[in-house]
Amino acid sequence: MPEKEPLYIEEIFDYVSQRPQKFALNFWEDPRYFKLHRHNFVEFMYVVKGEGTEHINSISYNLKPGTFSIVMPYQIHRIDYSEQNPLSIYVVAISFEELLAPSSIFYRIGELLLSYDENVLPYYYFEGKEKELMDRLFKEAWTYFNQEDVWAEIILKAKILEIVAYFDRCRNLASAENSQRPAPSVVQNRTQKDSIPVPSDYWQLVYYVHKNYNQNIDLKVLSKEFHLSPSYISQLFKKLVGSNFHNFLNEVRLQHACSLLLSTDKPVTDIALEVGFDSYSTFARVFHKHKGMSAQEFRKRGGAG
Amino acid sequence: MPEKEPLYIEEIFDYVSQRPQKFALNFWEDPRYFKLHRHNFVEFMYVVKGEGTEHINSISYNLKPGTFSIVMPYQIHRIDYSEQNPLSIYVVAISFEELLAPSSIFYRIGELLLSYDENVLPYYYFEGKEKELMDRLFKEAWTYFNQEDVWAEIILKAKILEIVAYFDRCRNLASAENSQRPAPSVVQNRTQKDSIPVPSDYWQLVYYVHKNYNQNIDLKVLSKEFHLSPSYISQLFKKLVGSNFHNFLNEVRLQHACSLLLSTDKPVTDIALEVGFDSYSTFARVFHKHKGMSAQEFRKRGGAG
Repeated sequence: MPEKEPLYIEEIFDYVSQRPQKFALNFWEDPRYFKLHRHNFVEFMYVVKGEGTEHINSISYNLKPGTFSIVMPYQIHRIDYSEQNPLSIYVVAISFEELLAPSSIFYRIGELLLSYDENVLPYYYFEGKEKELMDRLFKEAWTYFNQEDVWAEIILKAKILEIVAYFDRCRNLASAENSQRPAPSVVQNRTQKDSIPVPSDYWQLVYYVHKNYNQNIDLKVLSKEFHLSPSYISQLFKKLVGSNFHNFLNEVRLQHACSLLLSTDKPVTDIALEVGFDSYSTFARVFHKHKGMSAQEFRKRGGAG
Repeated sequence: MPEKEPLYIEEIFDYVSQRPQKFALNFWEDPRYFKLHRHNFVEFMYVVKGEGTEHINSISYNLKPGTFSIVMPYQIHRIDYSEQNPLSIYVVAISFEELLAPSSIFYRIGELLLSYDENVLPYYYFEGKEKELMDRLFKEAWTYFNQEDVWAEIILKAKILEIVAYFDRCRNLASAENSQRPAPSVVQNRTQKDSIPVPSDYWQLVYYVHKNYNQNIDLKVLSKEFHLSPSYISQLFKKLVGSNFHNFLNEVRLQHACSLLLSTDKPVTDIALEVGFDSYSTFARVFHKHKGMSAQEFRKRGGAG
């Protein structure tokens, strides 16, 4: 990794409506999306063609046709791709809010995905009959994505629900089979229809920062809110998003600051306080450390790093 | 129709948990479910084998393999079936609440189904490729219905969403094609992704009675609540559930009274007031008219009519 991280945090963005979206389906063959980054939504990827390697936090694994992977919000990831055998992938993006809002159609898969279990891998290799099914589901989803009526929209979301639930079942059952020990409790629980898991506190921690970045939050506040010790919370952040809590909080605040720098004329000092920094000087120090330039320079350059 | 209607109002009921359910999928070959009745949930039916005729309110149509039909809450319906070529049908039941609660996975199809348009038929004949798709979807749904893990439950519901949205699209497009006039506004609106229809007031009227049967409600109250004239509301009830408002309200109240008569030891006079009748004498008169016996007799006989 280069010394200065080429780190950018994106939202799901629709180029037609020019608005952030809650959900998207894409088909990518363009490697410009593959460099190191993180974003505030969940991303699923399914490889149709080609070869590569994906890196999420500290985990790396090969990509080949039939590979399905999930990147959780704020996880740092990149793809190394083969020039000889370039990748074609379907990419599904679902906003953090959509997974956690009971009124969202995706809430039920949110309950599954956001209960963190470190024994369950973020990827699964579909093969044989299972791969045929997954190929077909994505092909159908893509057809409906390109139709513009309300029924197609519902059918598309239903397909995504099915795809994600099927993936999550396969990887959980594989994790139970592969381990020497008995099935992880999460699998034992989930295979019983009656005991639907409640969203675990773990990803709720990340969501809390995602929502309250502009408040005065620190490990003590989180500890009180979630009834977990500060040191345990600190470890969890490292596992979940690959940064310690303070770095992560600063990165989320900087994301919002950058977007305000580029989209408004607000004074930099106001922006610093608006996104949650306690003083302009702290903001200036953190900004320079992460971006390699001052906020004023960033604004003048139109965001180019 | 016989003089005394063999009318019963059912809930979705699970014989294992002994509790009312929000959703069920069944496969029926037993004609005892086909006699005249109504229930407080939405029912979808898909014919796999056999022949018959379904009657909903005042509409009748033939059943053959590939027929998909929908019965809305409280609509009176029955099936005449062929003895030579008996029916095999899939039946999906979804509670009224599930279609109207924003937190339900079925809310999105509720928005579609509950906007009443009298030009759109309650049935559609699937044929050719479309029928192959529907056959496959129901077969897959049935497989997942018989699996007992949380993922299967999500996939099943996703399939039902897909099935219902696909049916509703087909019948709306057919209604637009068949008519001489331009496409009904509902189809024009719905084929635009941006203009998702809001639940129309029409089925909300029925839902209002379904929820508030034990309150002091009449056409004046509904008129004030929904900003529609009492006479128009009266016509709507006739169209939607096939009874005038007062008969319908009495039937809903009687349903609850019967269930209290059989499941509790409460005095009949208490039950009469509890379900919304203004006096015991009104209750007694209405009960006798609908059931052909007194409430005391009904309780003694254990409900047998």
